[in-house]
Amino acid sequence: MRTVYHKHDFPVDGVRRFLEPGPIVLVSSRYKGENNIMTMGWYTLMQFTPSLLGCFIVGYNHSFDMIRKSKECVINLPTTELLQEVIGIGNCHGDSVDKFEKFSLTPVKGDYVNAPLIKECYGNFECKVSDTRLLPDYSFFILEILKAHIPDHPQYPETVHYTGDGIFMIAGEHVGFPEKFRPENL
Amino acid sequence: MRTVYHKHDFPVDGVRRFLEPGPIVLVSSRYKGENNIMTMGWYTLMQFTPSLLGCFIVGYNHSFDMIRKSKECVINLPTTELLQEVIGIGNCHGDSVDKFEKFSLTPVKGDYVNAPLIKECYGNFECKVSDTRLLPDYSFFILEILKAHIPDHPQYPETVHYTGDGIFMIAGEHVGFPEKFRPENL
Repeated sequence: MRTVYHKHDFPVDGVRRFLEPGPIVLVSSRYKGENNIMTMGWYTLMQFTPSLLGCFIVGYNHSFDMIRKSKECVINLPTTELLQEVIGIGNCHGDSVDKFEKFSLTPVKGDYVNAPLIKECYGNFECKVSDTRLLPDYSFFILEILKAHIPDHPQYPETVHYTGDGIFMIAGEHVGFPEKFRPENL
Repeated sequence: MRTVYHKHDFPVDGVRRFLEPGPIVLVSSRYKGENNIMTMGWYTLMQFTPSLLGCFIVGYNHSFDMIRKSKECVINLPTTELLQEVIGIGNCHGDSVDKFEKFSLTPVKGDYVNAPLIKECYGNFECKVSDTRLLPDYSFFILEILKAHIPDHPQYPETVHYTGDGIFMIAGEHVGFPEKFRPENL
């Protein structure tokens, strides 16, 4: 049973709530009429405004060329209920299989990019490639997040965090101490 | 009560176990006889061998100049028992206070760098600055991890993951499905 999320526009300068904790994400892309999805664990936020994210996508990955050529992608945030799909997507090749079909995922049209959003994910972040200067040496894209689609509930999704060796950490409880922060540091 | 860890050398190409899940880390630095510590949440692994990590360190941070000039730092991995210290370190300035003294942390000499390791942290990663080309535009350092110091136990530390707004996610349980991975993808 998969949760049906009712998503709305979320400020792109606030995506740290979902991405800074470091969950595994699914990156969807589209090029010449073909869709693909990959799993990604090596990325970081780089700037609030514009909202920038840097990510390593290995050059022999099928998605690498699709993102480089189309200059866009969508970062999708799965929760624990999609963990088996996350593993499956990371362990088959997009040049021989339609991963949306294989894993019963639904492509949804974005507002800014042609790459498909994954409906079943908690959050979707439409991105365009912003800077490619680190591609030759590090296979590292700098993306700008153009739009974030997030549901009202839950406020904090139960994400999965990869540790290598086939083992994932599942997000636990949240604790807050905002009163101990300087306002400018929140 | 703080845990006393008995650490040993850990392969630097295996640090994803600790850093890929995205925990908050403490970055210690040393320049001209002065030590400093900062909290950091915006970083990612970039390569296994050499072991590379990219990180955003804001340019008006006191640590920025110390790391840029000394060309080295230590990434220290705290667990939940140091959460109040993590918050405190992130909310005071290193140009006016000795954070080791203020937070009763112990600087330990490294093997490869002059920047001090934080004894009370679960893990310590000695780093040198490897590439500065993204500093002017993005305040983004690329570091090489030269040595990792990790205890035998616990295998997976209970880390803290920042979400903004003064709220942290605490690492939850670990689940493993290595049998569902292709060997080369583990």
